Amino acid sequence: MVVLAVHGGAGGDGPWGGMTDVDPQRLDCMRRLLNDLGGRLQRGEINALEAVTLAVEVMEDEPLFNAGRGSVLDASGSITMDASIMRGHDQAAGAVVNIKRSRHPIRVANHLLQDGWPVMLNSEAADVFGAEKKVETVDQHWLITELRQAQWAKWKANKSAPGSTDEDDRAILDHDADEQPGMGTVGAVALDIHGHVAAATSTGGMTGKPNGRIGDTPIIGAGTWADATVAVSCTGIGEAFIRTCAARSLAAYHEVMPLDTAGRKVLNEVAPYGGRGGLIAINTDGRVITPFQTMLMYRGTYVGGLVELGIGPQTYA
Amino acid sequence: MVVLAVHGGAGGDGPWGGMTDVDPQRLDCMRRLLNDLGGRLQRGEINALEAVTLAVEVMEDEPLFNAGRGSVLDASGSITMDASIMRGHDQAAGAVVNIKRSRHPIRVANHLLQDGWPVMLNSEAADVFGAEKKVETVDQHWLITELRQAQWAKWKANKSAPGSTDEDDRAILDHDADEQPGMGTVGAVALDIHGHVAAATSTGGMTGKPNGRIGDTPIIGAGTWADATVAVSCTGIGEAFIRTCAARSLAAYHEVMPLDTAGRKVLNEVAPYGGRGGLIAINTDGRVITPFQTMLMYRGTYVGGLVELGIGPQTYA
Repeated sequence: MVVLAVHGGAGGDGPWGGMTDVDPQRLDCMRRLLNDLGGRLQRGEINALEAVTLAVEVMEDEPLFNAGRGSVLDASGSITMDASIMRGHDQAAGAVVNIKRSRHPIRVANHLLQDGWPVMLNSEAADVFGAEKKVETVDQHWLITELRQAQWAKWKANKSAPGSTDEDDRAILDHDADEQPGMGTVGAVALDIHGHVAAATSTGGMTGKPNGRIGDTPIIGAGTWADATVAVSCTGIGEAFIRTCAARSLAAYHEVMPLDTAGRKVLNEVAPYGGRGGLIAINTDGRVITPFQTMLMYRGTYVGGLVELGIGPQTYA
Repeated sequence: MVVLAVHGGAGGDGPWGGMTDVDPQRLDCMRRLLNDLGGRLQRGEINALEAVTLAVEVMEDEPLFNAGRGSVLDASGSITMDASIMRGHDQAAGAVVNIKRSRHPIRVANHLLQDGWPVMLNSEAADVFGAEKKVETVDQHWLITELRQAQWAKWKANKSAPGSTDEDDRAILDHDADEQPGMGTVGAVALDIHGHVAAATSTGGMTGKPNGRIGDTPIIGAGTWADATVAVSCTGIGEAFIRTCAARSLAAYHEVMPLDTAGRKVLNEVAPYGGRGGLIAINTDGRVITPFQTMLMYRGTYVGGLVELGIGPQTYA
């Protein structure tokens, strides 16, 4: 049995207020890619690694998710993107950090994985490597959308307000659902017909992030992990996921407890460090979990030909 | 009982041929810092976090280790340094990536840890943050030594030789003891009188490393890990340590097996991915291990007032 699961970021406080005007577009993106790629996985046309790469590419192209086109803007008003990918059976991995000119950061990471060495490339070097591998090069104007520009302007105005402090900035981020740290980060995990798993995660980071800040998304073991048994992609306040090595920890806990218990344990460890968020994980038995502690997590699963989607607590067929 | 352990990198193939002319200088550096900082730990003058920071600072200043002054040169002939640090009891962490102008990358990482957010800073932003925190700013001329310049020139000449390939480059690195990937990376782990542990790692990377390559040293969970029970610092071919999330994995294994067995298990997992190397680890019971799979690992321990040093298989009081 094949499985494909995706997330489009977790965030928000309090009870979920129902769908926004643009949420159907997000759900539609996930439904289409799950049906398409889930079917291709099922027919053995693609393996787990390619499935998670293609799934994340589709979400990078959807401007309402915070990855690729439509990424949020950093403090300087630019887009700097992070991504990582891992294949379970041989723990091959690739990651790009603070990349600025590649349409599909996850494909650049995939090429690093395929080449085998190095695993991680930084900034300009990663964009140059991606271009050499024929990953489409785009400019910042193409990546930046009006919505993200407006969110950034609002962040900037608040930051410049008299008496504002860094604490205020974070408070603003915490209480604006569209501005949640980690909100809109995308990820995918897959189990293919060979019984192999893979995981991938991609993000633009958080609106107004300081120049040079690296979150958990490009960190193997924190935002992304896959081994012979499980595949994990996390979303949330990245620093806490780094400090708990969240994705790798889930795999360790799953050695001695069921997948859902391991997932809950990880999120419970992350929370005390300010890291509320969510994750998606699968194991080679075909189990899939999508736990989150926030108001919502955009998510979808393809299991045995059936697609299920969710934003708040309930799910939809 | 307090414990302090340090390493100065692992590398080399085959049996150890005995000390080189400059090895006594390396041993002397480790002996002095272990006696000094071990004593201060014992008297409660410094905690584990400060002990590992100071230990790594001393080794960053010793030009024969590959960190801070005396770091190896990257493909472009520049020094780009990585470092990370972690405090066990609250899993606070800090990391800097591809930093170029700070005398003490580990102190910049320590300031990130103290500030709490973000955990990781990249390149120029990390140097700027360090300068704001009064970490001494130096220029590349100060960091680059004649020895490293000569090693780089040799690497460059080999690279430019007719018929040379990337494989040849790596073969050269593998067979020149002074040019081992990871050789000379420094790290420290400590247990203080409060029963708290910390870990720190710092490196210049590998001679001729591609622009933008990030190894395991700045990756929390890969090169460095500390939690309520253990502290770990790794050295070796970084990509394999990332793919196995080596430092965090040791902590996971130690949940169900003794520290030395857990350390061996980690190195056995790293090896199939081309990642021979070594590590130092301690736990809150005061156990310390310094396993390595290479020809040598520069290392030293302070336990109960006694200092022990080693390069090849045997150790010296």
